[in-house]
Amino acid sequence: MNYKFSDKVTKLQASAIREILKFTSVPGVISFAAGNPAPEAFPTERIAEISAELLRDDPILALQYNITEGYAPLRDFLKKWLASKKCYNADFDDIIVTSGGQQANELSCKVLLNEGETLLCESPCFIGSLNAFRSYNVNLCGVDMDDDGINLEKLENAVKTQKNVKMLYVIPNFQNPTGRTMSLEKRKAVYELACKYDFIILEDDPYGELRFAGENIPTIKSLDTEGRVIYSSTFSKILSSGFRTGFVSAPSEIIQKIVVCKQVSDVHSNIWAQVVAQRFMTTVNLDEHFASLRKIYKKKCDIMCSYIDGGFSEKISYVRPEGGLFVWCTLPDDCDMNDFCKKAIQEYKIAVVPGNAFNIDESEKSHSFRLNYSTPTNEQIEKGMEILAKMTKDILG
Amino acid sequence: MNYKFSDKVTKLQASAIREILKFTSVPGVISFAAGNPAPEAFPTERIAEISAELLRDDPILALQYNITEGYAPLRDFLKKWLASKKCYNADFDDIIVTSGGQQANELSCKVLLNEGETLLCESPCFIGSLNAFRSYNVNLCGVDMDDDGINLEKLENAVKTQKNVKMLYVIPNFQNPTGRTMSLEKRKAVYELACKYDFIILEDDPYGELRFAGENIPTIKSLDTEGRVIYSSTFSKILSSGFRTGFVSAPSEIIQKIVVCKQVSDVHSNIWAQVVAQRFMTTVNLDEHFASLRKIYKKKCDIMCSYIDGGFSEKISYVRPEGGLFVWCTLPDDCDMNDFCKKAIQEYKIAVVPGNAFNIDESEKSHSFRLNYSTPTNEQIEKGMEILAKMTKDILG
Repeated sequence: MNYKFSDKVTKLQASAIREILKFTSVPGVISFAAGNPAPEAFPTERIAEISAELLRDDPILALQYNITEGYAPLRDFLKKWLASKKCYNADFDDIIVTSGGQQANELSCKVLLNEGETLLCESPCFIGSLNAFRSYNVNLCGVDMDDDGINLEKLENAVKTQKNVKMLYVIPNFQNPTGRTMSLEKRKAVYELACKYDFIILEDDPYGELRFAGENIPTIKSLDTEGRVIYSSTFSKILSSGFRTGFVSAPSEIIQKIVVCKQVSDVHSNIWAQVVAQRFMTTVNLDEHFASLRKIYKKKCDIMCSYIDGGFSEKISYVRPEGGLFVWCTLPDDCDMNDFCKKAIQEYKIAVVPGNAFNIDESEKSHSFRLNYSTPTNEQIEKGMEILAKMTKDILG
Repeated sequence: MNYKFSDKVTKLQASAIREILKFTSVPGVISFAAGNPAPEAFPTERIAEISAELLRDDPILALQYNITEGYAPLRDFLKKWLASKKCYNADFDDIIVTSGGQQANELSCKVLLNEGETLLCESPCFIGSLNAFRSYNVNLCGVDMDDDGINLEKLENAVKTQKNVKMLYVIPNFQNPTGRTMSLEKRKAVYELACKYDFIILEDDPYGELRFAGENIPTIKSLDTEGRVIYSSTFSKILSSGFRTGFVSAPSEIIQKIVVCKQVSDVHSNIWAQVVAQRFMTTVNLDEHFASLRKIYKKKCDIMCSYIDGGFSEKISYVRPEGGLFVWCTLPDDCDMNDFCKKAIQEYKIAVVPGNAFNIDESEKSHSFRLNYSTPTNEQIEKGMEILAKMTKDILG
């Protein structure tokens, strides 16, 4: 038969990154195209211990239905932990556990935006969130970024000119794909614009704990006095991405609506992972745990950047990230980025992600590409970056 | 601030069952209002063994990102298993693993229906699916049921009079809430109507393996030659509901769209649960496993029905289920069902679910209530049903 799909889905494409990832299983290819946490960052032994105890002493808890809001002791932990980071305000916020940060962002869009209403985001932007927003047929409008985050003039202009602006989506810390961090001044200014023009900010912070350089910067959520910031994060980069366990801290009226939408989406998130996460977070020394992760990622980032600094053509520019998983490299204007990325994979067997994959409109030009240092081993980074450095000089001189 | 939620969410309410479940934690209340599998039906020891092996020998598999379609060996198992049940046709179908049956049904609606288009369903109908469909603002239209499933005349009439009928949602085996099973004749007739009027059938089969009486009836999916049946099911009732692991077998064009929508919803389902499910299903004797589950549920159903047959007022009618988790009891026309259910919880401390909770329009009258026998212990069923039997005689004579 001839299938007629819904309008919101007809235009939705599998992410361009997936197409590139297909090449990465070709033997001999070194991939800087993924976004997976470093496998050595998973605390496998402690997780195995906690899981064994749980399945021995309380198996029904791990196997039976639970409530949509999330495992109550995990929510209690999150309230305390996020309050200590000023990302949860007990006066008006509540918390829901979600199936990864992805669901947190998807449901935030679903509960607040009608088809055709405007959602602003940084350009370039995390492709998973872009596609989630696209799947609700909202009017997506990208705002260009500077080195220290979203461009304020362009943001205000977009708010004024786009119709029915309901929400701004940002990743202030070590943004995906650019690795850039929004300055405190900009965070304050963005929040002021939200108050002035009455829109919601969706602050996505999957990498916040992975700062290995520079000073911590307060979240936008910590500046929120009016209840207009939704803060979403995840255990994917600090514990396990296969868990699919994320969380949202937001004004309780918004959480209530997200709960109803989550109930119809998957009833609740896998409960084994929620219990393991809660027991892990409340029994290990978190400072030590995060320090060990930061050490892993700092090392990987340092290796990658040493090849950019010492080996890349000087015509390529980048901003050194202070945390997270990604480096964003920009080619000179006269170099065709898509040709560069194609040549990288086909001739040099190095996979990178073409920058236009992160554009709101993929057909718009981009001169950048994304490198990931968390997934490859240190040896793969050395070997692959040496090849990539040679390629940049071969091509750009 | 004053939050403006999206139209599709504004009208969406937490399920009425949840309101009743609040009472069930009151001390002394016996609840027949839930829908959880019997805890003794979970194969806890084997799951603990498999999990320990997995986390010891292959922890990164259990903790790292995986692909949206689902864990490849689990999909391979499902293809073989469902093909053996004629619920997967290798010529045109594909399979995706979902976060429970709930997500399977939600995404089937999302990919196929625009706001305002018509989705037909049995009336009464499973409330979780109703709310999922409501959250996409589709035109929901209920079709009355007979003892052997949906009324065919009313179905054809609805197809003719409702605009843009895209899909029919049915639970042919031991339907929730009625416990009724659709006859083979009706399954064939429903499929013929789908071909004649060009709509898709979403066949939800969470309880199919839990048949403890009567003869197996072929699924609608097994009759599908044109590629117009989406078959969804879950491990919730045969392995663990806390896993949140379900699956869909459908024409590959439809699966491709569901994959894209699942990717933006939660990237993939918890991978630990997927691997454990695959290893469980491929290492135990499934016939024995299912036989042990059927024995548990047959016993519980027998106890419950013995009190209905022997103790209830004769003015209450019901159809004895041949499987599944629920019994649907109907009061005489002159008895107010909501008063009855209120009195049951408040005076007799027995929780049942008022039938109108399963109506497409909750404000429409219902004379029925739903009893669940899977969640309470056998002792609780005996004690609670004795009280409920007395109540029916107190009130109805």
